[in-house]
Amino acid sequence: MTPDEFRAAGHALVDWIADHRERVPDLPVAAQVRPGEVRDALPPSAPEVPEPFAAVLADLDRVVVPGVVQTQHPGFHGWFPSNASLASVLGDIASGGVGALGITWQSAPALTEVEQVVTDWLRDLCGLSGEWRGAIQDTASTGCLVALLAARERASDGSEHRGGLQGHDRPLVVYSSPQAHSSVVKSALLAGFGADNVREVAVDPVTYAMDPAALAAAMEQDVAAGRTPAVVVASVGTTGTTAMDPVDAVVDVAARHGAWVHVDAAMAGAAMLLPEMRHLFEGVDRADSLAWNPHKWMGTILDCSLLYVRDVDHLVSVMSTTPSYLRAATDGEVVQYKDWGIPLGRRFRALKLWFHLRLDGVEAIRSRLRRDLDNARWLAAQVEAEPDWRVVAPVALQTVCVVHEPDGVTGEDLDAHTLAWVDAVNASGRAFLGASRLDGRWMVRVSIGAEATERADVESLWDLLREKVAR
Amino acid sequence: MTPDEFRAAGHALVDWIADHRERVPDLPVAAQVRPGEVRDALPPSAPEVPEPFAAVLADLDRVVVPGVVQTQHPGFHGWFPSNASLASVLGDIASGGVGALGITWQSAPALTEVEQVVTDWLRDLCGLSGEWRGAIQDTASTGCLVALLAARERASDGSEHRGGLQGHDRPLVVYSSPQAHSSVVKSALLAGFGADNVREVAVDPVTYAMDPAALAAAMEQDVAAGRTPAVVVASVGTTGTTAMDPVDAVVDVAARHGAWVHVDAAMAGAAMLLPEMRHLFEGVDRADSLAWNPHKWMGTILDCSLLYVRDVDHLVSVMSTTPSYLRAATDGEVVQYKDWGIPLGRRFRALKLWFHLRLDGVEAIRSRLRRDLDNARWLAAQVEAEPDWRVVAPVALQTVCVVHEPDGVTGEDLDAHTLAWVDAVNASGRAFLGASRLDGRWMVRVSIGAEATERADVESLWDLLREKVAR
Repeated sequence: MTPDEFRAAGHALVDWIADHRERVPDLPVAAQVRPGEVRDALPPSAPEVPEPFAAVLADLDRVVVPGVVQTQHPGFHGWFPSNASLASVLGDIASGGVGALGITWQSAPALTEVEQVVTDWLRDLCGLSGEWRGAIQDTASTGCLVALLAARERASDGSEHRGGLQGHDRPLVVYSSPQAHSSVVKSALLAGFGADNVREVAVDPVTYAMDPAALAAAMEQDVAAGRTPAVVVASVGTTGTTAMDPVDAVVDVAARHGAWVHVDAAMAGAAMLLPEMRHLFEGVDRADSLAWNPHKWMGTILDCSLLYVRDVDHLVSVMSTTPSYLRAATDGEVVQYKDWGIPLGRRFRALKLWFHLRLDGVEAIRSRLRRDLDNARWLAAQVEAEPDWRVVAPVALQTVCVVHEPDGVTGEDLDAHTLAWVDAVNASGRAFLGASRLDGRWMVRVSIGAEATERADVESLWDLLREKVAR
Repeated sequence: MTPDEFRAAGHALVDWIADHRERVPDLPVAAQVRPGEVRDALPPSAPEVPEPFAAVLADLDRVVVPGVVQTQHPGFHGWFPSNASLASVLGDIASGGVGALGITWQSAPALTEVEQVVTDWLRDLCGLSGEWRGAIQDTASTGCLVALLAARERASDGSEHRGGLQGHDRPLVVYSSPQAHSSVVKSALLAGFGADNVREVAVDPVTYAMDPAALAAAMEQDVAAGRTPAVVVASVGTTGTTAMDPVDAVVDVAARHGAWVHVDAAMAGAAMLLPEMRHLFEGVDRADSLAWNPHKWMGTILDCSLLYVRDVDHLVSVMSTTPSYLRAATDGEVVQYKDWGIPLGRRFRALKLWFHLRLDGVEAIRSRLRRDLDNARWLAAQVEAEPDWRVVAPVALQTVCVVHEPDGVTGEDLDAHTLAWVDAVNASGRAFLGASRLDGRWMVRVSIGAEATERADVESLWDLLREKVAR
C-alpha cells in the first residue's frame, strides 16, 4: 500500500471511527453474536490478491462491531472501565505512523525517553516519591508476574544464576487476599512458587480488605515450618468489590521478614490522581513495586499498564540479558527498557499516554474521575434507600456491589434470581453489568466509569435495574 | 476530546503519516540524538489544561522523528526488518477505533474469533498441519517464555499445582544453541530452571546450526547425572547469522527423552510462506510449539508475534485461572485466549493481521520476500567476488554476514577496523547496519528486508560499504 492509498483509506477510517463513537450510545451494549458466528462469517483462507479497502471497512460494521461489548457505551458497567479516550487513540495512531522499533535505547531513543518522561509525570501526579521509576507493560497481569519474579530473586539471592528454584530447600511463600485478581495466583504459579506455597490471607468480613494480623500469623507459621515469606501482593481496589488492602500495615508486617510488597492497583491507581483519595493509598510509597492501569478508568487506550519499582538495579539484574548484537557505546548512560520486563521489543506505547495527557489535560481527567465517584455514591444511596435492595460491600471507589433480595428468597433461589436479573438487564441492550461471587453468593457489580457515562445515564440505569428486577 | 475534534485531528495525523512515509527515504536512517536529549526537550510535568493538537503534532517532527532509527527506510539493514506495512497500520488504527476489551470471549467474541481465523489462515499458508492452533503474543520473547512454562509443567507433571519447582528433586534441563536469541536463556531463567540447568549445545562450525549429536550427548549426560531433559529450543533462523537448527533431527533426539521442542522462528517464520523455502523447516510440524513474528519481515506492524502449539489443552491447563467474575454460560463452546498466555487483557491485534493480509494480499507479500532473498544472494555474490571481503556464514535467508579483512589486519585490530567501518556507514545516514560477534570476532550483519528496499538500494548499499571501508 502506497502512502497515497493510505491517505485515502486513513481518512475514511478516521471518519468511520468518529461516526462509530457518535453512534455507540445507540448500539446495544452487549455483543450480539453466538459462539462461532464470527468465524463462520469469514472465509477459510486468506486472499491471494488485494481486496478493496471499502470491503474491509464494511466488515467492521458487518462482523466486528456487533461482535464486541461496547465498552465505550454510557451504559457499560461491566468488569472495570476500559476507556479509550480519543486523545489516546490519536497517540496510538501516531505510534503506528512513526513505525519505530523499541528494542534498545539505541534503536529508538525517543521511544525510551518519552516513556521515562510520561511515567515520571504520572508518578508525580500520583503523589509518589521520586524514588520510583516506571515502565509501561501490556497489563497488570504481566506487571504482577514481573514483580513476583523480582521478589523471587531477591528472596533467593539470585537463584536464577544458579540452580533456579529447583533444589531450593527453604520454600519461598507468596501471600495475597482471596479477593485478589486471578493474575496474582497465576503469576505465582508461573513464577514457579507452586500452589502449596501460595497463601490466601483472611480478609475483614465487612470491608473485604486483607487483615494484617492474619498476614502476620501466616508468615510466622511459615517461618516456624522452615519456609521463607517472599512476597505479599496487596490489592488496592480488588476486582470483586474494590476493597482496599491496608498497605501501610502490610508493609510493616512484610518488613519483619524482608518480604517484597507488590501493590496491585490496576483499577484504583487512577484515584491517586485525586489528592482527596490518597488516604486510601497510605503506605504505597513504602512498597517495592506498584502496578496500575491508565487503560482502565483513566482512559488511555488498552494496552497501557504501568509498573513502578523503587529498586531498578535489582529489577534489571533479574531481567537483563545483553547479547553482542544489542551492545552499544552509550549503554551506560541510558535506560534499557528491555531489562525491565519480559519482551525485548516494545511498541511506542508512551505516545498514547503523552497524547492523552497533553490533549485532554490533567484537570479534565481528574474532573471525570470525581464525576464517577459522585455517581457511584449517588447510586449507592438510591440502592440503600430502597426496600429489598442492599449494597453488599463498601463503595470505596466507583463500583457498587448490589443484591436485590425479595422477601423469602434465599440461597440458590436468590442466586438464580440475581443471575436472571442481570441477564435481563444485559439483554435489554441498554446497559451491561457483571455478576461476581461474594461470601458464597452471586451479587451484581455496577462498575461506573465509562468516559461517556453522565449522571443522567446512571439515573436511567437505576430505573432499568428496578424495571428488570420486577419483570 | 469529541468525535468531531478527533475527526479533524485524525485527518491531520493521517496526512502526517502519509507525508512522513514519503519523506523517510530522505531522512538519516540512524537516530540523531544523544542520551538525555529527548528528555531534556520535554517539560518536567504534565499539562493541567489541554494543548492544541498542532503543538503535539509538531512535537512528532521536533522530538520523535529525529529520535528513532528509521526502520521503514530503504537503507535500514539493522537487527532484523521491523516492517510496518501501511495496510497493517490501518488495522491497528481500526483496533483503536473499535475500542474493544479482550479479556474473555464474552467481552469481545469478534476479537477472539478473528484471531482464530487469521492464525488459522497463516498456519495454512505456512504449510503447517491442522493440528496447530495459534494465538497472538506481543513478541517471540514472551512466546518463548510461555512455551518454556508449558514444557516445565509437562516435564514436572504439573508441579505448579503442588510445590512448584521448589523442592523438585530431579532437575529439569533446557537446551539451546549458543546462537539462540537472548530471550531463550532469559525465559529459562525467568521460568525458574536456573542457569545451572541451561545447556548450550555445540553448533556446526560452518553452518552455526545445532549439532543433533551434541544434543543427544548432552541429554544422555544429564540423564546419567539424575536430571531430566525438559525442553529444547530449536532456533530456525538465529539472530546472529540466520542459522537453521535441524528441527527434524532435534525432534528425534528430544523424543527419546520426552522433551518438549520449541521452535523459535521469530525472523525466519515468514519464509514458510514460500513453498520453495519449506525444506529449511523440515520437522517443525512435529515440534510442540512454534513462534514467529509477522511484525518482522512479513510486515504486520509491531507487536504481532504468533505462538502456535499442538496441545492446546495442556497450554490451557498451565495458564488458566477463572474467577467467578469471568465465568459465563458459553465458556465450554469458545476459545479463551486469556488461558493461552500471560496477560488477561488483550488488544484487538488480530485486526492488523486481517487488514494486512486482505489489503495487500498474500501473493504480494510472497513476492516481496522473494525479492529480498534475491537481493541478499546478489549482495553475497558481490562480497564474495571482492578481494579482502568475506561472507562469514551461510546466507540461508536475507541476512548477509560480512567482514572486510585488509591484508595483515587481524585480531583486535580487525575488530577495531570492523567497528569503525560500521560506525562510518551508520554516520553517513544513508544506511544502518549492526555488528555482532561470531567465533570471538566482530562481523557486520546486513539484514535485507525493509519493505522499501529495492535492488537499486542494495546496489547503493554495496557502493557505500566499499566507500566507507576505504575511508
